[in-house]
Amino acid sequence: MNHRTEVSSLGEFGLIEHLTKNIEIHNASTILGVGDDAAVIDHFGKQTLISTDLLIEGIHFDLTYTPLKHLGYKAVMVNLSDIYAMNGTPTQITISLGISNRFSVEALTELYEGIYIACNKHGVDLVGGDTSSSGKGLIISVTAIGEVAPDKFVKRNTAEAGNLICVSGDCGGAFLGLTLMEREKKIFLENNAIQPNLENESYIVGRLLKPEARKEVIDFLQEAGITPTAMMDVSDGISSEVLHLCNQSGVGCRVYEDKIPISEDSRKAAYKFGLDPTICALNGGEDYELIFTIRQEDHDKIVLNEEISVIGYMTTLEEGCKLISRGGNDYPLTAQGWNAFQTR
Amino acid sequence: MNHRTEVSSLGEFGLIEHLTKNIEIHNASTILGVGDDAAVIDHFGKQTLISTDLLIEGIHFDLTYTPLKHLGYKAVMVNLSDIYAMNGTPTQITISLGISNRFSVEALTELYEGIYIACNKHGVDLVGGDTSSSGKGLIISVTAIGEVAPDKFVKRNTAEAGNLICVSGDCGGAFLGLTLMEREKKIFLENNAIQPNLENESYIVGRLLKPEARKEVIDFLQEAGITPTAMMDVSDGISSEVLHLCNQSGVGCRVYEDKIPISEDSRKAAYKFGLDPTICALNGGEDYELIFTIRQEDHDKIVLNEEISVIGYMTTLEEGCKLISRGGNDYPLTAQGWNAFQTR
Repeated sequence: MNHRTEVSSLGEFGLIEHLTKNIEIHNASTILGVGDDAAVIDHFGKQTLISTDLLIEGIHFDLTYTPLKHLGYKAVMVNLSDIYAMNGTPTQITISLGISNRFSVEALTELYEGIYIACNKHGVDLVGGDTSSSGKGLIISVTAIGEVAPDKFVKRNTAEAGNLICVSGDCGGAFLGLTLMEREKKIFLENNAIQPNLENESYIVGRLLKPEARKEVIDFLQEAGITPTAMMDVSDGISSEVLHLCNQSGVGCRVYEDKIPISEDSRKAAYKFGLDPTICALNGGEDYELIFTIRQEDHDKIVLNEEISVIGYMTTLEEGCKLISRGGNDYPLTAQGWNAFQTR
Repeated sequence: MNHRTEVSSLGEFGLIEHLTKNIEIHNASTILGVGDDAAVIDHFGKQTLISTDLLIEGIHFDLTYTPLKHLGYKAVMVNLSDIYAMNGTPTQITISLGISNRFSVEALTELYEGIYIACNKHGVDLVGGDTSSSGKGLIISVTAIGEVAPDKFVKRNTAEAGNLICVSGDCGGAFLGLTLMEREKKIFLENNAIQPNLENESYIVGRLLKPEARKEVIDFLQEAGITPTAMMDVSDGISSEVLHLCNQSGVGCRVYEDKIPISEDSRKAAYKFGLDPTICALNGGEDYELIFTIRQEDHDKIVLNEEISVIGYMTTLEEGCKLISRGGNDYPLTAQGWNAFQTR
């Protein structure tokens, strides 16, 4: 090796692209491989979805303010979210743990309590895993398996100009919860006589520590007879995900600032921290809402669902990716979303 | 939490048992869950196998003497081995990486070269994963997916008294390779003018760094019309695996020391290090051979296959688990196999 390229120079997606660009597919059952929320495998009458996530202490979670039960719950939820984001139903998961000797059996039992609550809530079976020691810290690897009716899976690269961009629930809350927890942690570390002040902040703290995979959105779409043209989950902020959908689909977009769904609690918290709520929703991560595009003729079917907001529409590639401010001005839509290769 | 139980007091299998004993199964498609080499999921005409492994730098591998290309190859092979150990055919894998900033893109490209060589050799598709930074060291999580004809999967808990115990290839080599590498590393760290002396040791070094998942053994069994009564792969040494099969199946065993397959190269290396080759094969890990039990009437079908050794037979539970020495004496068979919760 003569030349050293820093991973940070490529970023997560650049690295994945670099490492996987020459993949050859051997099995007819491999319908969709690397590059979406989940892979798709054909199984005679149904298709299997598979998705995996690695969570590392100090990178993805901070045990100073994350109860282990919540962590177990969240580790499962973020994987189920990937299966729903393919328009599928999760059915099984595997969990691998790397644990340092800091963790007792009681601590791991708490972690598993959260795992089981999440599994039971979504009717998912824990079917396997691997457990070993880690030199330092806690490592959690979750793989989720799901199913989808043949060719009903929804990818990221199939949005079309004119499609409406929809987001479920509201965004920015998890980032504000993280901001609050990091602030309280700093205060506590400076003077541990001061106890954390989380009063009136249960919404944003819950968004951070106990995200919910949006099964009911998938159920609603099915009942309403809507197949999104493209979909993914919101793990890195609305901007980052809209740009993904645009880049992968070869389209542009117009996103309207005043349409971005932000809860009242998040808005208040943002003002308290001196942050712009819109920026939190656009660039904050870990909301685990669903973002999807639908055909204009499906608009009437979703308009009465208060859980779904239309935030804009797709345009042609030439028109670029734009954010339209409340004042009506155009700005380029950019992602400063959370980058797994930058230290938080 | 009032009471603290050390994970080491339960061991890996005790911990898994503790954490998974109350699992409820929700999906009819979940045929076999936690506790075997892989889970089994029903998919209309074929059954899907799924298995996962977590490899952590400093615990499972040492980059001082493990080339990244070999590590990528091995990470895939140990997972494919689990699918073969279920009598299945691997079809897809996912790979998640946690990487510190010590690793350049060139280094990761090398790792992936090994991953792709292993995938291509076994006709397996890489279909997804997750990549993020780790605070320290390299973390590799691999999930393998495979398929098996309905109800042709072979579990660990179905061996019967009277069954012959068979092992593919030879054992102990990987442990001896590890012993050699650790010794050379120590010498090098004490005086780095002394270059590693690996002359004539390519066999044991290869067994450690480049294990092969035993597809051809599964192919042979299929062609010979043999369905093993129980099977698993040898990752923790023959003793540990035989005891697993016995414990899970509720049977005893007699294993004959003089039948344990050990290569000439491994035997020579053991003598050089002052080790008993039998102990290395019984208690050394990472050989990734297959160990399985067959009915006595299938004996004639395997007797001419030089790659398969009959090392003993299963008895009733009451007869216990015995090792019969060359001198004809009985000893209790015990496992001092590699324990992921002890520091290597």
